Amino acid sequence: MIKPVELIPIGGLGQFGMNCSLLKYGRDMIMIDAGMAFPRGYQRSIPGVSLMIPDLSVLENIDGNLQGIILTHGHEDHVGALAYTLEKINVPVYGSSLTLGLARSRLSERKMLNRSKMVEIRSGEKFAIGPFAIEPVGVDHSFPDSFSFAISLPAGVLIWTGDFKIEKEGPEHNPFAEQVLSTYGRKGVMALFSDSTNSCSSGFSPPEESVREPLRELFRGAKGKIVVSAFASSIKRIQFILELAAEFDRVVIPAGRSMIRNIQIAQQLNYLSIPPEVLCSLKEAPFIASEKMVVLASGSQGEPLSALTRLANEQVREIKMEKGDTVILSTRKIPGNENSINWVINQFYRHGAIVYDCDNAKVHASGHAYQEELGRMIDLVQPRFFVPIHGDFRQLKTHASIAESRGIPEERITIIENGDHLQIDQDGAIIIDRLALSTRFIDEEFLDEVDEIVLRERRHLSLRGLVIVIVRLDSMTGIQVGEPEFTFKGFLDQDDYQDMAREAGQRISEIVRKTPLAEKRNAEMFNETLRVEARRIFRKRTGKKPVVIPFTVEV
Amino acid sequence: MIKPVELIPIGGLGQFGMNCSLLKYGRDMIMIDAGMAFPRGYQRSIPGVSLMIPDLSVLENIDGNLQGIILTHGHEDHVGALAYTLEKINVPVYGSSLTLGLARSRLSERKMLNRSKMVEIRSGEKFAIGPFAIEPVGVDHSFPDSFSFAISLPAGVLIWTGDFKIEKEGPEHNPFAEQVLSTYGRKGVMALFSDSTNSCSSGFSPPEESVREPLRELFRGAKGKIVVSAFASSIKRIQFILELAAEFDRVVIPAGRSMIRNIQIAQQLNYLSIPPEVLCSLKEAPFIASEKMVVLASGSQGEPLSALTRLANEQVREIKMEKGDTVILSTRKIPGNENSINWVINQFYRHGAIVYDCDNAKVHASGHAYQEELGRMIDLVQPRFFVPIHGDFRQLKTHASIAESRGIPEERITIIENGDHLQIDQDGAIIIDRLALSTRFIDEEFLDEVDEIVLRERRHLSLRGLVIVIVRLDSMTGIQVGEPEFTFKGFLDQDDYQDMAREAGQRISEIVRKTPLAEKRNAEMFNETLRVEARRIFRKRTGKKPVVIPFTVEV
Repeated sequence: MIKPVELIPIGGLGQFGMNCSLLKYGRDMIMIDAGMAFPRGYQRSIPGVSLMIPDLSVLENIDGNLQGIILTHGHEDHVGALAYTLEKINVPVYGSSLTLGLARSRLSERKMLNRSKMVEIRSGEKFAIGPFAIEPVGVDHSFPDSFSFAISLPAGVLIWTGDFKIEKEGPEHNPFAEQVLSTYGRKGVMALFSDSTNSCSSGFSPPEESVREPLRELFRGAKGKIVVSAFASSIKRIQFILELAAEFDRVVIPAGRSMIRNIQIAQQLNYLSIPPEVLCSLKEAPFIASEKMVVLASGSQGEPLSALTRLANEQVREIKMEKGDTVILSTRKIPGNENSINWVINQFYRHGAIVYDCDNAKVHASGHAYQEELGRMIDLVQPRFFVPIHGDFRQLKTHASIAESRGIPEERITIIENGDHLQIDQDGAIIIDRLALSTRFIDEEFLDEVDEIVLRERRHLSLRGLVIVIVRLDSMTGIQVGEPEFTFKGFLDQDDYQDMAREAGQRISEIVRKTPLAEKRNAEMFNETLRVEARRIFRKRTGKKPVVIPFTVEV
Repeated sequence: MIKPVELIPIGGLGQFGMNCSLLKYGRDMIMIDAGMAFPRGYQRSIPGVSLMIPDLSVLENIDGNLQGIILTHGHEDHVGALAYTLEKINVPVYGSSLTLGLARSRLSERKMLNRSKMVEIRSGEKFAIGPFAIEPVGVDHSFPDSFSFAISLPAGVLIWTGDFKIEKEGPEHNPFAEQVLSTYGRKGVMALFSDSTNSCSSGFSPPEESVREPLRELFRGAKGKIVVSAFASSIKRIQFILELAAEFDRVVIPAGRSMIRNIQIAQQLNYLSIPPEVLCSLKEAPFIASEKMVVLASGSQGEPLSALTRLANEQVREIKMEKGDTVILSTRKIPGNENSINWVINQFYRHGAIVYDCDNAKVHASGHAYQEELGRMIDLVQPRFFVPIHGDFRQLKTHASIAESRGIPEERITIIENGDHLQIDQDGAIIIDRLALSTRFIDEEFLDEVDEIVLRERRHLSLRGLVIVIVRLDSMTGIQVGEPEFTFKGFLDQDDYQDMAREAGQRISEIVRKTPLAEKRNAEMFNETLRVEARRIFRKRTGKKPVVIPFTVEV
């Protein structure tokens, strides 16, 4: 019997990043990508939290068996949560050699290297996981060997684009993908799930190759040292920088752990071809003349502890920024990071460097398809049903309009968000359930999930501060011994508000006097009374409601 | 004897917003603007803080008497800290009737209305404060009656542009300013202090009038209701909306406290001409057809409690967003606010509305001069010395390059930042001192300054969480009574980490046993020993160093 296909996105739909979806056929299930996201917007006000992962507890509520994880490519928003995922479910992981290489190095950091089976897959080489017959199709993207997946099931064929763009010409032009996808299209595709990241950008995306000439111009004009920052996973961009350095007789010094590691891995796996004698280490920097040096630094988003920020702050002992240096941010500014990035840029200007970024130079090209390319994908695949993926709601909605303009009837376009349980067969695509998902935060020091209640406590403490009250009671009579003792922490300056503490103390003493001994013996309830009353007084006097923690100690 | 002029910027130079500078001649001093800033970047991670004000404590370290505050215009980044400033120093305030009107309403919120003398000034009408002979010169800006100041002193003439742009033509074209400034220029200007906000934008800024036609197009095409958001202080933009509403037979419902208040004040002072029967109140909204309605909402930066955000969240009882509604954000996205704004935009899309902002429609024009206008200002004024103001370092530096390209020699251009004490006479401009400034934060509930130490405590609590330890000691023998009692708050889930608390408890009991009675009697030192030891154990087990507060109670 042919069953319908089910899709449950648990990240990346209706949000930026954290791409992770479950595809289900009967009781068999695979996961596509296991990405993480960085806290953004209000999430940034949750202190001590550095990244977010998909809510995998949803697996407990789905009647099915996860059989494997297939990875489209190795960017963090597609693989960054893999370690946390494998800690919960030990299933085989399928990906390109580079994707698996980067994933392995992250797993080894968490000492999980030999836990899961890693299966290398290649473009055009079909493989199967249970009923899912999968063909990886190499597509253009800013990560080498990125895959779309053509997934054949008894119910029909699904195309999952992953992140992609379509390079019309030049060295990155890839006729293979178009050929394969259009072949599937001609045979009949039940549903297309396509990347919406740039659905609000009209026309064609600039080709990756378009970045080379502007970079070359900056290299040609540079007098002092050159600092280039790019995503450590932008292997193609890193290749450009290495080639340009060789061309202008400069050496490249990778700076930042992820940059050093990724270059190493990409080189080992033959994804980078490094010109002879171009690479140097940070230790050698003091012996290299500025005009012979390129520093290739991670931290393009202004992350506080990154190599780029540390260079801007003169915290890198071996390299000092000087007047006449050139800084190139070959990256986009992820919304929400503008301030941190601008702060770093201003620091470089203070040291006399000039900074080029995507605002004043064409030093970055997006890896995601613009509207015309998205339309082209729809034309190639000619799907019966269309579901936009990877994007916030506005982007999904705009992508849906593009599909409509390419002839997909409105009733065959479905916008779903994280947690929506979609069921598709040849007759229709319907949302059969909506699963409640929570955002899972990773504590940046603990390096593991922290409970939402704990985060709420942190938030309260940080917004309102803390007052601890200690009341001593005679263990026999229940009569107060001495005065209540207050400790302020993060509330207000305790010395400035002694009279307020005194007022609260008097009120608490009064309550202690009036409360019968039996009630005082119920410590929990009695503390709650004290807590509410103390908070009321502080609130009346300051407008703030501190977190009040009272202790009654029998002496 | 002719003395040099001194300038001490305490806000707005090397940062965005919070414009506030001191101008000093001998011992006489005036303040130009008293603006506030919103927390940005890392400052956003300081919880419970909603705005920042200039560090006025600097006045204590300057040998001089502040005689008055002159206001260029009424935007928050120029007047928002006025109340906090007048609480510290009671001096007369000079500004246009609209600027003073808005300032008065803010002062009355803090019950400070009748404290300071308010002096209305007009373009072209000179006035004096001590030795400062000041001419306000009306300039183009997104706030009506914005002033540049021409300040004549025995040492020479200074031009302080404030925020400005130069409208080349159209209804906003203002030949007066050019005339006056060039007259000063011909007679000789010692120094020009000019707005750098848009110094990185090439060409001319789009005229304010250029926004009208795109807005009209959106009004013409709108089927359902229209929601427009703009800064509540964008009086000119509000005038456009009122006129377009009348043209398309719609009423305007102001939403949001600042929007309602500013419209009222601007109307009373004749800065708004409101077409008859256009204004309605929120209460009337349920009786107005969607296609006859414009909601004019404050909160264009996605502020969580603003009218716009509440509309997006369906929290405004009287107005429900529907499919086919049009939302227009007639504003720029201030860097750092993109996430909050995008969140609001996505919410509107979820309700079926379409959103137009500066990314997909020409619905905003900046009020600040672009490079060609900045050059024109320099040409008009022909100053001997040039000092860029209002901007982050990159903008100041770029503005300095513009001045150089307009013929000002490099040695007569000085880049200064907040706290730099600049001295200028006809012979030179030199930095004679650098004053240390701190950022002053206003607690959003307390509505007053909070100490930096308190903020640091909040931050530690929020990043690391809290562990309270209570140890009971026999008052006679110093021997521990019972076990140490732990309370976790915002650290980790206490139930999950009972064994860790037990381990810490054992270690603490051991310390209590081994410490001689006399040492235990020194509570402060003994508590510190317990604190360090408990924190060490938690750190070893979790990687986190919670804030540990131990109490030893004698029983």
